[in-house]
Amino acid sequence: MTGKIEARLAELGVSLPDAPAPAANYVPFVVMGSTVYVSGQVSMENGGFVTGRLGDTMDVAEGAAAARLCAMSLLAQVRAACDGDLDRLKRVVKLTGFVNCTPEFTDQPKVVNGASDFLVEALGEAGRHARSAVGATLPLGVAVEIEGIFEIA
Amino acid sequence: MTGKIEARLAELGVSLPDAPAPAANYVPFVVMGSTVYVSGQVSMENGGFVTGRLGDTMDVAEGAAAARLCAMSLLAQVRAACDGDLDRLKRVVKLTGFVNCTPEFTDQPKVVNGASDFLVEALGEAGRHARSAVGATLPLGVAVEIEGIFEIA
Amino acid sequence: MTGKIEARLAELGVSLPDAPAPAANYVPFVVMGSTVYVSGQVSMENGGFVTGRLGDTMDVAEGAAAARLCAMSLLAQVRAACDGDLDRLKRVVKLTGFVNCTPEFTDQPKVVNGASDFLVEALGEAGRHARSAVGATLPLGVAVEIEGIFEIA
Repeated sequence: MTGKIEARLAELGVSLPDAPAPAANYVPFVVMGSTVYVSGQVSMENGGFVTGRLGDTMDVAEGAAAARLCAMSLLAQVRAACDGDLDRLKRVVKLTGFVNCTPEFTDQPKVVNGASDFLVEALGEAGRHARSAVGATLPLGVAVEIEGIFEIA
Repeated sequence: MTGKIEARLAELGVSLPDAPAPAANYVPFVVMGSTVYVSGQVSMENGGFVTGRLGDTMDVAEGAAAARLCAMSLLAQVRAACDGDLDRLKRVVKLTGFVNCTPEFTDQPKVVNGASDFLVEALGEAGRHARSAVGATLPLGVAVEIEGIFEIA
Repeated sequence: MTGKIEARLAELGVSLPDAPAPAANYVPFVVMGSTVYVSGQVSMENGGFVTGRLGDTMDVAEGAAAARLCAMSLLAQVRAACDGDLDRLKRVVKLTGFVNCTPEFTDQPKVVNGASDFLVEALGEAGRHARSAVGATLPLGVAVEIEGIFEIA
């Protein structure tokens, strides 16, 4: 039995990663009532970190692809928070996107769009969220880190 | 019929901007129960971005003025979230202020005060909020970006 | 009469600081239902700021010690939010840790661990939280600033 959201992901050719384990003494998500707070998810692919600095070693398209990977990890965490049933996800509430970039780089929104576009593609209206996108220095040299707030049933 | 908060804003000579549209595939705010999450609002005036870097091309007073503009946009979004009736705003809960600055700049709080002071001026006690203020690299070279959490009736 | 959490802190040899007053026109915390939003707490010790830049003037162990100080201030604020009774704290929900660092520094998680480890030491399972850790430019040159969301009874 596959849920509607999982079916939509399959249609998109997307296979969610395993929910990444946190790198330290904290948890990947906390559920408080119907709100799920998900820890910052860094850009990863096939178990390796996607590193790079926008405005230097990485361009906007590559950055957006990295942000999309963060969104996939966020969804994987939400699925774990829903005991595997992603159809309990009611909506994406808020993302904060941190982009590893030079001081001169100004296209943080275009980078974080990689995450936003994916969530709307996968979830439709329920994927539309409030958002901030800023530049920061990131752990392990990853290109993007995104944290999120989600509403579940 | 003008609400009490709108009357107070008029008294201050403040006319809220139209709620700015987001620059990408996300929404300006999400309402979850009585909580409104407002997307990061960048410093804008008369439809143009207010750009600059604190510690370099912009001083603290100019930065505080930019932060005030962000707070005006936040209120404009909350008004939209309240279907135009700003008197439904119960309180400002939390702001996160991101200041575009050099690595040496240390007066982020004085900059974000431009937003905090405005909200207390406009809303009284209901305008007093929890807050963080940090330096970051910002979209489009804007001077300040502020996101907010608000409680509404 | 001392609560269980205060007793545990005493066992750890920890005496919480007075809840630091905010540096501007905002409040140290806002309670909304059972959620407490605590303003960003900067690294302080004995009333003075703990300053430094990771990757330059401060190493990871010193940074983690600074993060631990932030967590102590966060708990002090939560105690104030609970009218002095820290046993009303149900759990730490979410931390956002900002680390003052060079663009090359990549160990933000190890620094913020100073806060996470302390909270788990002091509170056990209730201290485990969702988290983000990023590099930023910080007020007054402090080494670390951490904001938090807490659930109280």
